[in-house]
Amino acid sequence: INSKLPNIETSIFAKMSKMAADHNALNLSQGFPNFPSDPALNALVDQAMSDGYNQYAPMPGDFGLRMEISKKIETLHDRFYNPETEITITAGATQAIFTIIAATISKGDEVIIFTPAYDCYAPTVELFGGKIVPIQLKPPFYSVDWQQVADMISSKTKMIIINSPHNPSGMLFSKEDMLELQDLAEKNDLLVLSDEVYEHIIFDGNVHQSASKFEALAERSFVTASFGKTFHNTGWKMGYCAAPENLMKEFQKVHQFVVFCVNHPIQKALATYLKDENHYLKLSNFYQQKRDFFLHLMEGSNFKIVPSKGTYFQMLDFSEISTENDIAFAERLTKKHKIATIPTSVFNEGRKDFKQIRVCFAKTDETLAEAAKILREL
Amino acid sequence: INSKLPNIETSIFAKMSKMAADHNALNLSQGFPNFPSDPALNALVDQAMSDGYNQYAPMPGDFGLRMEISKKIETLHDRFYNPETEITITAGATQAIFTIIAATISKGDEVIIFTPAYDCYAPTVELFGGKIVPIQLKPPFYSVDWQQVADMISSKTKMIIINSPHNPSGMLFSKEDMLELQDLAEKNDLLVLSDEVYEHIIFDGNVHQSASKFEALAERSFVTASFGKTFHNTGWKMGYCAAPENLMKEFQKVHQFVVFCVNHPIQKALATYLKDENHYLKLSNFYQQKRDFFLHLMEGSNFKIVPSKGTYFQMLDFSEISTENDIAFAERLTKKHKIATIPTSVFNEGRKDFKQIRVCFAKTDETLAEAAKILREL
Ligand SMILES: CSCCC(=O)C(=O)O
Ligand SMILES: CSCCC(=O)C(=O)O
Repeated sequence: INSKLPNIETSIFAKMSKMAADHNALNLSQGFPNFPSDPALNALVDQAMSDGYNQYAPMPGDFGLRMEISKKIETLHDRFYNPETEITITAGATQAIFTIIAATISKGDEVIIFTPAYDCYAPTVELFGGKIVPIQLKPPFYSVDWQQVADMISSKTKMIIINSPHNPSGMLFSKEDMLELQDLAEKNDLLVLSDEVYEHIIFDGNVHQSASKFEALAERSFVTASFGKTFHNTGWKMGYCAAPENLMKEFQKVHQFVVFCVNHPIQKALATYLKDENHYLKLSNFYQQKRDFFLHLMEGSNFKIVPSKGTYFQMLDFSEISTENDIAFAERLTKKHKIATIPTSVFNEGRKDFKQIRVCFAKTDETLAEAAKILREL
Repeated sequence: INSKLPNIETSIFAKMSKMAADHNALNLSQGFPNFPSDPALNALVDQAMSDGYNQYAPMPGDFGLRMEISKKIETLHDRFYNPETEITITAGATQAIFTIIAATISKGDEVIIFTPAYDCYAPTVELFGGKIVPIQLKPPFYSVDWQQVADMISSKTKMIIINSPHNPSGMLFSKEDMLELQDLAEKNDLLVLSDEVYEHIIFDGNVHQSASKFEALAERSFVTASFGKTFHNTGWKMGYCAAPENLMKEFQKVHQFVVFCVNHPIQKALATYLKDENHYLKLSNFYQQKRDFFLHLMEGSNFKIVPSKGTYFQMLDFSEISTENDIAFAERLTKKHKIATIPTSVFNEGRKDFKQIRVCFAKTDETLAEAAKILREL
């Protein structure tokens, strides 16, 4: 058969995690924690199964969970999403992102993304006949030149995809960035997909600028988030999408045929767990300690490091250590030095190599200490 | 925004389940059991969470579970699917069906379906620019005229979607049907999507004719199945797809962007649970008792009934009870007689009304007795 995605290979995450396993290396590549999900949350899932919540959930999701999400967004970002019509629970943020693109992008539509970009945006846009317009952000700060964005908008531009806190760079969009975006989106009648899966992991007193916080922007935005990233259980595959009713209606039309609905007992458990806001508000502190611990251990290393402002990722510039390309460097690190990271050129326009590898610091202090020890000696 | 699925409304399943709840009616509409998932299986999920299987599963699924599925298919249908490359675990069969169509159907491709058809095939094909070619099967036997199928195949035909045991009719494809299908698929170089979610629910000594059992057919088929239907937990959203490597490669390219992977602890639990083949082999007997119990209670009713041969659905012909269309009839039954069923015209070509409603008999004997009491008095 003809491939509809001829250029797609196994993802870099699967590749590096496999290489880590094959070579018995520390795995700081794929983004997931190596500490446990809260036993109290596990117990709530078990309880929901015993209570008999094992049949189809409502198509948009358990209503109690949608209410808790609505309350959370209203408290944090002062925007009310109607839980009846403006929130849908998804099988992870990936399924939300796929569904948003499926519901909105048609042949010929242009979609602006900022590279380095998470690897699911471009192929999904292409699967629906859309065209990716990449705007390359550059180390060390990965900041956006909004005039450049304005210049890249054409009559065919349908959507801009943003991701703040930004994976892999750890950059944040400021309030000013969001206002620039809002302005461009309004002027050019664009949709926005705001991938906010690291919304609760923000450092140094910075504030997460959710698309839902900006009134005119929120009117044209799909906001997506991830329980897996927030509650340390990426393998549960739970997330959500929030959007105004006219957009959510189109989302749900597709969602019902992608999965119909998602895991019911976990939804019940999360509906209870979310009632205690401390469960997510404490996350920034938790990860800031990890980031600071790791950066402290890395003092005096030969990597150039700009501290991550959010996400659980840290970029490391290895240009003073090696002239290898980042893929060769990451491969050598894995096979010879027994530490797996992510080479980030694969996320850039034209696979441009800025000599940056990404480490995931969602790891126990022991793992971080071992990792820093190896990296510091390079 | 322009709708990509302008004609899609809320599904009949969501509609009738909601009407049942609103009117406090017995719910025999949407297909799900009202008895519990096995506590031993729930306990395995809880164990997997405690054991720490809470991060991303491998993209194609837990390898142990893929091995068990491979063994199961080999034992039952004498076909070996390589668990490394030919099986993927999905978020329910719905996600598998969506992904199969996404990976294979492009603008202009024709896809043959047999109506009445489960409601996700047509919109998914249309979302990818394909064209549905419906072939209407007729009550009471819903059998296929393969000459008619041959006549409907054109140079644009890319795929035939089959579903045996068949929802909603309870019809089965015989070995002869499958050989006819194989012949047509080979001659015309077609792909086959074989939706086998009711594979383990077969009555009266009949045998499930899986597409995987017919060598030349299996070479061009995607076979999909559902753990939710088999283990009484439709709300866990777990299923799988099996296909030869060249097809599975294209499936996985799309799968990784639809969900990346699916719930890890449940996969671990199912890998253990599947080792005891009795867990699924006993299902036909279990549901045959329910069907027989229900049919016995319906003796002397004014419905015309051809016993279901598989699935947990029974069609009831109400032409001797009312001249209403089936939607009006089902609505009246729900609101006035307090029993919700599914009007099946919505699944037919041109919504043709054959005066058939569908009841789900995956219910406790008490519920079935109450339901039959109401229905017998009509
Ligand atoms: C779905 S695997 C990738 C996990 C992740 O978000 C990352 O490593 O960036
Ligand atoms: C996804 S809701 C529909 C359940 C079902 O398979 C049916 O009722 O036919």
